[in-house]
Amino acid sequence: MNEFELIARLTASLPSNASTVLGSGDDCAILDLGLPDRWLLFKTDAIVEGIHFDETAPPDKIGRKALARCLSDFAAMAGTPTHVLVTLALPTDFQPEFIEAVYGGMNALAARHQIAVVGGETTTNPERLLISVAALGAVEKGKCTLRSAAKAGDAIFVTGELGGSREGKHLEFEPRLAEASWLVDQFSIHAMTDLSDGLSGDLRHILKASGVGAELLSEAIPISRAAKFSARAHPTAKPPLTAALCDGEDFELLFTVASRDAVPLLDAWKDRFPDLRLSCIGKITPETGLTLRDKSGLRPLTLEGYVHFG
Amino acid sequence: MNEFELIARLTASLPSNASTVLGSGDDCAILDLGLPDRWLLFKTDAIVEGIHFDETAPPDKIGRKALARCLSDFAAMAGTPTHVLVTLALPTDFQPEFIEAVYGGMNALAARHQIAVVGGETTTNPERLLISVAALGAVEKGKCTLRSAAKAGDAIFVTGELGGSREGKHLEFEPRLAEASWLVDQFSIHAMTDLSDGLSGDLRHILKASGVGAELLSEAIPISRAAKFSARAHPTAKPPLTAALCDGEDFELLFTVASRDAVPLLDAWKDRFPDLRLSCIGKITPETGLTLRDKSGLRPLTLEGYVHFG
Repeated sequence: MNEFELIARLTASLPSNASTVLGSGDDCAILDLGLPDRWLLFKTDAIVEGIHFDETAPPDKIGRKALARCLSDFAAMAGTPTHVLVTLALPTDFQPEFIEAVYGGMNALAARHQIAVVGGETTTNPERLLISVAALGAVEKGKCTLRSAAKAGDAIFVTGELGGSREGKHLEFEPRLAEASWLVDQFSIHAMTDLSDGLSGDLRHILKASGVGAELLSEAIPISRAAKFSARAHPTAKPPLTAALCDGEDFELLFTVASRDAVPLLDAWKDRFPDLRLSCIGKITPETGLTLRDKSGLRPLTLEGYVHFG
Repeated sequence: MNEFELIARLTASLPSNASTVLGSGDDCAILDLGLPDRWLLFKTDAIVEGIHFDETAPPDKIGRKALARCLSDFAAMAGTPTHVLVTLALPTDFQPEFIEAVYGGMNALAARHQIAVVGGETTTNPERLLISVAALGAVEKGKCTLRSAAKAGDAIFVTGELGGSREGKHLEFEPRLAEASWLVDQFSIHAMTDLSDGLSGDLRHILKASGVGAELLSEAIPISRAAKFSARAHPTAKPPLTAALCDGEDFELLFTVASRDAVPLLDAWKDRFPDLRLSCIGKITPETGLTLRDKSGLRPLTLEGYVHFG
């Protein structure tokens, strides 16, 4: 049994109750606690030393990343995070100044989004630092964007440029909260998620939850400079398109809208967010499966993001 | 700088916002999200292999403990937990069956309290298992019990019997949710907390938050069988009274009420909870400081729970 099989077994039979709108399976859990017009969103996310950051990462950026990952999940649901709790599991040899700087980076990002850090705890994890952030927020009931709402014929959009996040962006990305909020205010957004596992993997989450397929256009995939640079600098690196399709931690928004909204959305976006690229990268198909179209035709895209040729 | 000094520095300047009633400093954070008559309570708690449990602990009891610790914090505020998220940081050599059993123990306790487990995540912590639980719930605004509400003259009560939790109770304790709910429905409970750091330490949290002191009666401290057994079985073990004063993880309720309510409360308690001991162990004093009275007089009690003689 691998980790994904284990998660599937664990989440198959979790206790629920009447105020739970949606448990596991989307970017945040959705709760209805009786607030008129609003649902609560609830999410946790952890980062671990040696896995999500290494010893070269500045401590303020480690703290910032721990919080930003959680905020990106609220953006994915078009929600607004309001309160967080922070669990610091500290190695035996922790330096207080290092931990203060971790908090400094986290607090600065929280303050910028009017998020209260309402406590948490410190405990011991002898070999390495682990930071877990639990976040609470809200979303207008009518505007919450689920993974399960993609419809055949929808245009697929992605913000920013993809791939190569490990070169630095994973420590500095901006959670797309303002963009998501604007999107649901201005347009009927169908499905939305944030890119944490890589475009190919995260799009699959939408497709599976919505019971549809997708066809991506190779030329439309926005490839980051970092992905292109890596491919040039390291002969053994992935080709840039593969990096854009399968690298994790882009933390951009991936969403679908009715095809008639695609051009008006692109126009309005350019006016509102002139510094952030928005790309229409393909369409939702009634047939399940994920394919990539390029000059030589249509090919299936594997789970790992690699394009199989012939 | 030790861990407590670090926490003091970290919590001194956390970002807040208008919907935060109380951030760090009590058993749960308190949020006002606009629900009539109710506040939300928000809490996280983590347990780590080798620190909060060892390899001899059955996996279902490990999972149960991870959740029960969080629930005990809701009891301390007289609140009702409703939703939890679970973060499992798995060692490299994890056994899926073991993790399933961890979830089994957690889910059974959650279901018994109508709590929904609304997801969470698994990540990697190569050397040891770490489980962090984030919990959300609610409390009636007028009934929430803070650490800061003790008044001079109050009688001090504690549920159950104290000390020696490591002999087994720490894996099997019952969070006192029903008892706390009954207490605030029937009486005007002033301050309340749960015993996680030991009676001496946790009472100090109440005294500091309330700006008062306390005098405990040595003969009234309820000492557990486990604490007495340990003292007999291990010549180097703490005396039973010291164990009851300073051992951690009792997870009983410690609270104060006006002295006129003390006898009616004891009477009503015996009718409602005949199988759970309730002890009046002393009184709140206007002078700060914590003292213990026994046959030979009044002595200061140190932070570690030890009684200094002469």
